[in-house]
Amino acid sequence: MSTSSEGPVFADPRRRATALRELRKAMTAGAVDTADEARRVASLDTCRLAHLPEAVIRPANDEEVATVLRLANRYRVPVTARGAGSATTGAATPIRGGWVLDLSGWDEIRIDAVSGYAHVGAGAINAKINEAAEKKGWFYPPDPSSKGYSTIGGNIACNAGGLRAAKYGVTRDYVVALEGFLPTGEPVKWGLPLKKYVSGFNLRDLWIGSEGMLGVVTRATLKLIPAPETRATFLAAYKDEAAALRTVREVLKARLVPSILEFIDRQTLDCFLRKHEKAGTLGSLPFRVKAGDPAPAMLLLEVDGDAGQVRRQKTAVRELLGAKALWLRQARDEEEAEALWRIRRTCSQAMFQMGDTKLNEDIVVPLESQLPLLKYTLEVRKKTGLATPTFGHAADGNFHVHVMFDWGDADQRERARESIELIMRKVVELGGAITGEHGIGLAKSPFLSLQHTEAEIGAMKRIKDALDPNGILNPGKMFEPFDMWLQPRDRAWRFPWDH
Amino acid sequence: MSTSSEGPVFADPRRRATALRELRKAMTAGAVDTADEARRVASLDTCRLAHLPEAVIRPANDEEVATVLRLANRYRVPVTARGAGSATTGAATPIRGGWVLDLSGWDEIRIDAVSGYAHVGAGAINAKINEAAEKKGWFYPPDPSSKGYSTIGGNIACNAGGLRAAKYGVTRDYVVALEGFLPTGEPVKWGLPLKKYVSGFNLRDLWIGSEGMLGVVTRATLKLIPAPETRATFLAAYKDEAAALRTVREVLKARLVPSILEFIDRQTLDCFLRKHEKAGTLGSLPFRVKAGDPAPAMLLLEVDGDAGQVRRQKTAVRELLGAKALWLRQARDEEEAEALWRIRRTCSQAMFQMGDTKLNEDIVVPLESQLPLLKYTLEVRKKTGLATPTFGHAADGNFHVHVMFDWGDADQRERARESIELIMRKVVELGGAITGEHGIGLAKSPFLSLQHTEAEIGAMKRIKDALDPNGILNPGKMFEPFDMWLQPRDRAWRFPWDH
Repeated sequence: MSTSSEGPVFADPRRRATALRELRKAMTAGAVDTADEARRVASLDTCRLAHLPEAVIRPANDEEVATVLRLANRYRVPVTARGAGSATTGAATPIRGGWVLDLSGWDEIRIDAVSGYAHVGAGAINAKINEAAEKKGWFYPPDPSSKGYSTIGGNIACNAGGLRAAKYGVTRDYVVALEGFLPTGEPVKWGLPLKKYVSGFNLRDLWIGSEGMLGVVTRATLKLIPAPETRATFLAAYKDEAAALRTVREVLKARLVPSILEFIDRQTLDCFLRKHEKAGTLGSLPFRVKAGDPAPAMLLLEVDGDAGQVRRQKTAVRELLGAKALWLRQARDEEEAEALWRIRRTCSQAMFQMGDTKLNEDIVVPLESQLPLLKYTLEVRKKTGLATPTFGHAADGNFHVHVMFDWGDADQRERARESIELIMRKVVELGGAITGEHGIGLAKSPFLSLQHTEAEIGAMKRIKDALDPNGILNPGKMFEPFDMWLQPRDRAWRFPWDH
Repeated sequence: MSTSSEGPVFADPRRRATALRELRKAMTAGAVDTADEARRVASLDTCRLAHLPEAVIRPANDEEVATVLRLANRYRVPVTARGAGSATTGAATPIRGGWVLDLSGWDEIRIDAVSGYAHVGAGAINAKINEAAEKKGWFYPPDPSSKGYSTIGGNIACNAGGLRAAKYGVTRDYVVALEGFLPTGEPVKWGLPLKKYVSGFNLRDLWIGSEGMLGVVTRATLKLIPAPETRATFLAAYKDEAAALRTVREVLKARLVPSILEFIDRQTLDCFLRKHEKAGTLGSLPFRVKAGDPAPAMLLLEVDGDAGQVRRQKTAVRELLGAKALWLRQARDEEEAEALWRIRRTCSQAMFQMGDTKLNEDIVVPLESQLPLLKYTLEVRKKTGLATPTFGHAADGNFHVHVMFDWGDADQRERARESIELIMRKVVELGGAITGEHGIGLAKSPFLSLQHTEAEIGAMKRIKDALDPNGILNPGKMFEPFDMWLQPRDRAWRFPWDH
């Protein structure tokens, strides 16, 4: 075995060149792209930690995927599978070079409207799957905020969540079958388009969330559910995080299951207000009850279901949301619902007033730790002097804690690093998870050992070695602590989805 | 590594005796039980393939579980974890002897009524978890027919399903965190009581359904959901399987999501009718519209939810179920609902008129293959001359195909073996699964290679070797084809739940 505790040993540049020549011969014309532009695109994800691969490969069929993996194993060349590149952790960065296996073209979507399944290629875009499902009266619920451009392959790699997870679950809850390749190149299928299946060990769920390190997913079958008939949308303002989060607790305790329960802290809202007050684009919502009032904390809540269910839930929601609120709005129609959503949809972008770099930590804490966590973000802010605006999915405790700073300022960079470390330690101390829907990748690799014991990490690594004996698949991630502060971010690159 | 393609090599009897002496010294008094009665209880599950272990161990605490596993590894002694012993496949049989780790006493149940979690020990009984949840307004949906006596540890080992899976999912869908031990004895936790979590590889779901071969589960955290307010129950009779299964298709196509949709074939109903007509205990339902009519096929359907939802669904259900029915009954109250359920609850027992031995194959087929499968069971009946009564969970395609015969009759045994092989091959040919909720264990080990390719099984075995290098945990299962026809079944043993 060529792996060691220092990680796998890869081919030297000369041998890599030989491997690439052989690959070209074995593949259809145009499948192997070594142009600068293609390599640049494939060098990074939205974490902006970039490393150029030697080639981008767009396989024409299953046999070509197998060929890539077989040659990569023979010559010891790293292979990193890629969809849109919207990962936030560097998980899609080919940090050891080698070949990027671009599956974004594998984007077929076929809906089985009788059984309620979507049969999709790894490159199918999340939102397009739901659009195709909706045309037949079905619904694919997982909705990461990247849904307009992220691929299902990437969603599976990091078990993407989204806003509706507390009611509808995450990607894992909808994947019934995967098709793809072992790191060593053999085709495999895990699961079938069936709602019950326990034959053999469950490698389907081992692959989901394994960040492309245990196999290459080429196709998936997703379970669909009947689309909810209607929804009701509420926005409420609270004097502080404590009042908002105590309200969250009351909503959950009442066993209401909102489809959306988004929390926005005062720091986030303050960014939003300052941006839009300056630009005169604030709109008519009374964010500050009177001029000069501080920014409130907020909750955005939706219930969905059939008309009767939504009607009955509305009454309970109004009472619970309203009890501690400064004000509460309920949308009367879709247009008003969109107006209430605006703050949540745009608040992230408004944060760039506070620094040119935003770290977005998708931590999760238990219900009873939500308020302690939010209080701690304010302590961190005080200690490091950097803003820690936080919003997120309160019904499942998945908060996006941000640290805003200027990358060019070495002192701020140092304080940002400190902020993140403090937050990660606190999250684990509170019984939480360092990542709820983004994964580990490069960015969180230094914190893996906060979350897991040596025995747990050892078991994970033994599984990696068992399935990928040469360590060729997405190397350098998760288990090898990466110091992202030593590498400048590729801040010049514009993603298609950048604002 | 002491494993080989022939399976692991275990200690000889003398060395096992030394290991047992050392174990006794290390454990609290009474934890190691070598009495005949205890060993007999632990020798089998409901598959009745028996093998005596050398000792039954009831660990007092976590440290003792670790001790058992460490010594077992040092001396190479097989360890088989056990709950109630209600597995149907021989998965709980210590077929290589050694030590049975009895966790049935680890039965604590604690409900977190605010966050909606049940924190349970591996020995907690399924139905008791739901009872505890219901007291606080919550609901634990997975309901295998063994729910009154099977433990959550066993449910997790085979990813138990049940009647409500098509609407509510299976055990896997409710397990958010597991606590336990690697085969080598290190304590581990997979997941946390959180609704989002993607840190590291997902060994939680690898453990679920791995039939006690990859680790020992000691505790679990289960997600609960709000209990449905009410339900409506329907029973409908059809002239044959085709009419009943076409109705299933219409129900699913209409995107109704029944909480129960049980199918019962004519052979099953015929057993039930003959038994109860003879005994004069048939009750008032018009199973045969007029005397002498053949037994019909049947569907039992329930919808649940809040009062409004159930009301609206009822109208649709009546129309869809009634379209092809000989007759249709709707329960007006709980008592009538129980009367409609009687056939489903007791039909399995009625089959013993047709033979003293019942093989219960929990296969799964896609919706479009339901009717072809049922037709094939009749072909098999014709070919082998043995009855193949079938019922099951039509909404998820999980049918229990039974083969009834007399064990003592060598010719019937041979034909039973042929029946099972024919059915398994057909299931895979139809795109189905050889097991939906029971697992592989011993009984289905000869068919694993029908379901999975060599590469798939190879990956599973490499994972087994990676986590259990000495192969001590539940050896002899899944990957080592076991010929259950060569070993007499322990037919004398009475389980507490035997009728």
